[in-house]
Amino acid sequence: MEENKQRSHILRGNILYARSPGELVTAERAFLVCIDGKCAGVFETLQDAKDAMPEQYADLPVTDHGDCLIIPGLCDLHLHAPQYAYRGLGMDMELVDWLNRVTFPEEAKYAEITYAARAYDDFVSDMRQTATTRMAVFGTIHAESTLLLARKLSEAGFGAYVGKVNMDRNAPDCLRETDATESFTQTMDYLRKFAFLKSQGKISDRVHPILTPRFIPSCSRELMEELGELARQQGLKVQSHLSESKKEIAWVMELESDMPNYGACYARAGMMGNPVPSVMAHCVWSSPEEIEMIREGGVFIAHCPQSNTNLASGIAPVRSYLDAGLHVGLGTDIAGGFSRSVFRAMADAIQVSKLYFRYVDESKKPLTLSEAFYMATMGGGAFFGAVGSFLPDYELDAAVIDDTGLRSVLAMNLAERLERAVYMPEQCVLQAKYIAGERVF
Amino acid sequence: MEENKQRSHILRGNILYARSPGELVTAERAFLVCIDGKCAGVFETLQDAKDAMPEQYADLPVTDHGDCLIIPGLCDLHLHAPQYAYRGLGMDMELVDWLNRVTFPEEAKYAEITYAARAYDDFVSDMRQTATTRMAVFGTIHAESTLLLARKLSEAGFGAYVGKVNMDRNAPDCLRETDATESFTQTMDYLRKFAFLKSQGKISDRVHPILTPRFIPSCSRELMEELGELARQQGLKVQSHLSESKKEIAWVMELESDMPNYGACYARAGMMGNPVPSVMAHCVWSSPEEIEMIREGGVFIAHCPQSNTNLASGIAPVRSYLDAGLHVGLGTDIAGGFSRSVFRAMADAIQVSKLYFRYVDESKKPLTLSEAFYMATMGGGAFFGAVGSFLPDYELDAAVIDDTGLRSVLAMNLAERLERAVYMPEQCVLQAKYIAGERVF
Repeated sequence: MEENKQRSHILRGNILYARSPGELVTAERAFLVCIDGKCAGVFETLQDAKDAMPEQYADLPVTDHGDCLIIPGLCDLHLHAPQYAYRGLGMDMELVDWLNRVTFPEEAKYAEITYAARAYDDFVSDMRQTATTRMAVFGTIHAESTLLLARKLSEAGFGAYVGKVNMDRNAPDCLRETDATESFTQTMDYLRKFAFLKSQGKISDRVHPILTPRFIPSCSRELMEELGELARQQGLKVQSHLSESKKEIAWVMELESDMPNYGACYARAGMMGNPVPSVMAHCVWSSPEEIEMIREGGVFIAHCPQSNTNLASGIAPVRSYLDAGLHVGLGTDIAGGFSRSVFRAMADAIQVSKLYFRYVDESKKPLTLSEAFYMATMGGGAFFGAVGSFLPDYELDAAVIDDTGLRSVLAMNLAERLERAVYMPEQCVLQAKYIAGERVF
Repeated sequence: MEENKQRSHILRGNILYARSPGELVTAERAFLVCIDGKCAGVFETLQDAKDAMPEQYADLPVTDHGDCLIIPGLCDLHLHAPQYAYRGLGMDMELVDWLNRVTFPEEAKYAEITYAARAYDDFVSDMRQTATTRMAVFGTIHAESTLLLARKLSEAGFGAYVGKVNMDRNAPDCLRETDATESFTQTMDYLRKFAFLKSQGKISDRVHPILTPRFIPSCSRELMEELGELARQQGLKVQSHLSESKKEIAWVMELESDMPNYGACYARAGMMGNPVPSVMAHCVWSSPEEIEMIREGGVFIAHCPQSNTNLASGIAPVRSYLDAGLHVGLGTDIAGGFSRSVFRAMADAIQVSKLYFRYVDESKKPLTLSEAFYMATMGGGAFFGAVGSFLPDYELDAAVIDDTGLRSVLAMNLAERLERAVYMPEQCVLQAKYIAGERVF
């Protein structure tokens, strides 16, 4: 394993990465230099040319990935690990029904650590084989099970924010913390144990805890205030759900009738961005006021097109979000989404944007491939730091994709090969994966 | 190969099939009896029970497919073989642009038989590995290349209608027949050679020619009249496109300004069903008058949800079509669709129906899994005869699916396993395939 841990080296192959939403950079059979886990540059040739590699890197070992595509690792900005076991089931329900009938009873089982261990083994070993390198992931309300999830993700090399969920109202007894105090105490316990495991080297420095109030209907005002205060004190990030479906929003407005909109409930607790970095899943039906709050706070939007379709929630207006310069990444939202593939999320994002264009607003032109690729890499990556591109000083996360299964009588350039890999990832093979320069697959 | 040709035998496994749009039949570890290529029944046990297999079948050989799912082979009611080579490319255009810039230049290459041979080899060998057993497929305007396609499909065991395309207007010179007479003559040549190859045993009795006027913009009135007459005389089926996108419809109305609607242009030529069986792809924007014409003629609708999304055409109102008792099957529409999987078409059909429900008409409830499964098997299968179910006297087309890749800590019943296989076919393996009782994979 020593070789795999080496963090200064060179990868050779067909390199593709985003520089901005509209700009895809490609380089055939080029050299990607990794120094101490970070990108030091992409060079067309080894020497004697304009874009040649500087001499100082000449002695680094080169891993040649042949004709494969080398892209930044994909970032999954929103998913639920305990829902992995039943992905693709119960897809004939809308959000609130689906939570009560499918999700909550199943998540309650994670009180038992042996059940969690089996389920999270499946989850992590399957995710390991995807092109995903970073994720913002929900556990359950159970501290011990969620710590186990964090350890397993760490062992598999992932970069991740892992959240113990908070829920102190509107959930069945088996999946509800008795009150705000109990929920807060459990969270403190989670954070303390997380820090201890890190100090023991049992959780890597790429895996972090994140505050995870499930959504407003599940969290009392008192709990939200305490969590917001904790986030500010300890510099913790926050993940939650926002304006996913119309029924959910109506419910929130009923529960919090003195608030002007859903987002304001998070803002009141200091969880809509600055100074607390936060990621909100969905934002399908955000009002202009809520969008302005997102913009001001620098809140990340986790766009989850497949889940929003499966639960008949709707289509998030992503063209508008990109035009407004908001931070937008992609989420699989397992198991509102059935697919664990962020490639699929890219394709879904493009597809639903075409239906939005057709049925909602013809002035919002559909997303392009390069925009979807940007969101899946650089857009979501920014939540994790300098992640999601091969620009200098970015952490070197890379997925090496063998696309020979997409053979054709036609010759294709690199951008075309990427487009096909995005639409047909099941016909490609992950040949290798690197996270912060380390080979993890 | 002798064993594979055997057409009276028994398959054992977990059997699932549709009896109607709302009715999914499941039988665990049951026996599916095949006599002379046709279903003779599904029996729960071998003997001494209510649903036991009749004694007369006791000596037939049994192939035990263990814990696999055995479902009727899938029917792809609309796809373009010459577009397979570039599936997943140029997905940022709408229909008419995409035809002119991507499709037509590529299809022109099929004038060269060696090019066609290479491309159709890829197509057929890849399709062989899917759960598809029957297809209605477009070739190009080139008789020789399309005959080659028919031979290759026949060799791979498929049931298919294979069409040489007619185009005598509004196409680049390289892909246009000079006039109606030339187009008609080429079609007669195709039919004659097809019959000859059949007589020589080089095309099986499950593969047939079908008249294939591309769509109204490509076919002059004179040509349509001649083809309609030919269909009636020779008892040929017809496949074409209908009301796919708004721009296309506007174009048709400009070209055929004396006609009340798009469908009427086919009806005038006697191609909207009775007595000539026909299948029309898309029907996204069919008017009430057109729908009534479809109903009266018993025309099959090939619903192609992925293609309609990719080309931003829209969402066909399938709930209304099913409620009206129309014949509806599914098509991948390669390469308006990038996926060759009819499982994917089922998932896509359900998904877009949810967005239709959300954005167009909340009175049209989303399609269910069993309705999508019905369309992919029995609904589309009816175009091919008694195909698409395991009811008695149906031709025995079966796909044997190993879904162990979808392992979970949760126990699942057969309907749940089918739902997951539909949403995640890439995590399943095709273990065997039978067409009209013959093992072809």
